[in-house]
Amino acid sequence: MAIVLAVDIMSGDHGVNVTVPACVAFLQKNPDVKLILIGDRDTIYKYIGNSLSKYSDRLEVVHSTQVVDMDEAPQLAMRNKKDSSMRIAINQVKDGKAHAIISAGNTGALMAIARYVLRTMKGIDRPAIAKLLPTIKGEVCVLDLGANVESSPEHLLQFGIMGTQLMKAVTHKPSPSVGILNIGSEEIKGHEGIKKATELFKKSNLNFYGNVEGDDINKGTVDVVVCDGFTGNVALKTIEGVAKMISFFLKEEFTNSTLSKLMAVISYPVLNRVKQRLDPRKYNGAVLLGLNGLVIKSHGGADEIAFYYALEQAYHEVNAGVLNLLEGFLNQHKELLDDKDDSKKELAEFKYLNML
Amino acid sequence: MAIVLAVDIMSGDHGVNVTVPACVAFLQKNPDVKLILIGDRDTIYKYIGNSLSKYSDRLEVVHSTQVVDMDEAPQLAMRNKKDSSMRIAINQVKDGKAHAIISAGNTGALMAIARYVLRTMKGIDRPAIAKLLPTIKGEVCVLDLGANVESSPEHLLQFGIMGTQLMKAVTHKPSPSVGILNIGSEEIKGHEGIKKATELFKKSNLNFYGNVEGDDINKGTVDVVVCDGFTGNVALKTIEGVAKMISFFLKEEFTNSTLSKLMAVISYPVLNRVKQRLDPRKYNGAVLLGLNGLVIKSHGGADEIAFYYALEQAYHEVNAGVLNLLEGFLNQHKELLDDKDDSKKELAEFKYLNML
Repeated sequence: MAIVLAVDIMSGDHGVNVTVPACVAFLQKNPDVKLILIGDRDTIYKYIGNSLSKYSDRLEVVHSTQVVDMDEAPQLAMRNKKDSSMRIAINQVKDGKAHAIISAGNTGALMAIARYVLRTMKGIDRPAIAKLLPTIKGEVCVLDLGANVESSPEHLLQFGIMGTQLMKAVTHKPSPSVGILNIGSEEIKGHEGIKKATELFKKSNLNFYGNVEGDDINKGTVDVVVCDGFTGNVALKTIEGVAKMISFFLKEEFTNSTLSKLMAVISYPVLNRVKQRLDPRKYNGAVLLGLNGLVIKSHGGADEIAFYYALEQAYHEVNAGVLNLLEGFLNQHKELLDDKDDSKKELAEFKYLNML
Repeated sequence: MAIVLAVDIMSGDHGVNVTVPACVAFLQKNPDVKLILIGDRDTIYKYIGNSLSKYSDRLEVVHSTQVVDMDEAPQLAMRNKKDSSMRIAINQVKDGKAHAIISAGNTGALMAIARYVLRTMKGIDRPAIAKLLPTIKGEVCVLDLGANVESSPEHLLQFGIMGTQLMKAVTHKPSPSVGILNIGSEEIKGHEGIKKATELFKKSNLNFYGNVEGDDINKGTVDVVVCDGFTGNVALKTIEGVAKMISFFLKEEFTNSTLSKLMAVISYPVLNRVKQRLDPRKYNGAVLLGLNGLVIKSHGGADEIAFYYALEQAYHEVNAGVLNLLEGFLNQHKELLDDKDDSKKELAEFKYLNML
């Protein structure tokens, strides 16, 4: 069966300028993929040009009249934008027409609408935003990256379960290791919540490494780093900031004289390989884990290449069967999870959505 | 008047092997400095060799019989190690014999003992660990880096005040800008505590920029980044991790073939300049701010060069009059601070020390 991806074509800072060319390139590269493009029909037709007929059997356009603004309040987007490209795209997954949805839109609105439309999986209280990042040894999955500001020990355990299944699916490691992000300062070893979470992880059947520190993320000490969304978001942005600073220093030093410039030209092949390895566009595409459907969030400022990689990420995760694996694990390990009755969970869900 | 620094010579992973040569190099470089070396007298004499007579007028040795272990519980170190090099070194500052104390020892014990011996400044409830880090535009001061796991909005304001005065003193900027570290995820803009702190900063006469994100640290968006100690510690360690990963990638790519190695040789001058700019040893020396005395914490694993830079940092901060500036500000702006009576503060201090 072909993999079908629903794409919120109107999303991101650059909208169709970026999303449509990325989709066309993606169709060309992956002959087993079908794309559903959701957005303003006329605009899509205008941007897609000749490719429409070329890929007519693997390309569907679904018209929508609204767009969720990048800074729109999630609760307003949810209430007033029922015909937005974002919502209609998510509906494709809910209706079983697509295996995953990709959007470069407003993160808060995407999370709120996806959660409302798709609901959280049985056994998961809070979805988390997860991302793969480069390390010295391969890739690491970090979560949560900002879906929740504060996380209970139980939530952290659920993040650990989700991250483990994601890494198992995409890296084929039989038992990915998990660490809880903590501080190593000798005086006080972390929050109370982390201590409790550590106990829960120890009792679980996850491959628990123990607590890790900030430098362990890119060292590749573990396959999965679990943290609350506040800490995870700060760490993720900090990584971006350091990488930019170092690139800036390299550029500055390699262009500060004619001789330096000559060295840059000579070393170009090596410098380019390093640049390629660090290119954040290759790591574009965070996944909203814990929902009954695969939702991929591209960076809002993504260019064509970056958006292409978000599509790749979605494709790869559908192909690897991430959600099936996670669902299977949750069904088999109910003892690890809170046995909240559904009415309580619905209430929590409702409260969360009101908080937005 | 000569600047006098008290050095806990027995501290750090490498002890006298590192601290003594760094002190000798420092004396040679700075003819206006006097050092008090605290530790086992015989060991010091053995390691210092001929330099003792050479710098006899600027070098004093104070004997101590105990050493605080790197992993010793702070409360035990405080109770049982009254004749430790760390404690005697801190006493030098308390007794007015030295302007600052430098130790590469156990952070928790250093904080606990320094806090007990020197007490917090009037107006400051909690000391913070602050560090200068490189950015695209110069340097940024980040605090707290782990002295406190959780921080109230009032504590964050106090960190902002301390960071501002530190940067004013060392960079001579008339009005350093301050940002509160937060997350930019659209759905939920940070903890309640950060929202309250934002209000306090707005009302203060600090040069408040607003909230910043993780990537703003190394972008140099602001001069001072304020955060709780948990987040700060994670960010600091994450920065170290990314820098190591990128160095690793550069090294790997520049050594993976004979041709690459040749390029590395040709580009050496430029690569070396970048390496110099990023050398974490140059940024060694965090300051425990908010105490009645200047306490500088060197990285435990510091080598001779790194420990030298921690001495430089202490020298620079004494020279810049950081504590006087901070004390002056606190006296002039009592309206910004909680008017806790001293008994309450003593109680909090006692509670804190018991927590360790």
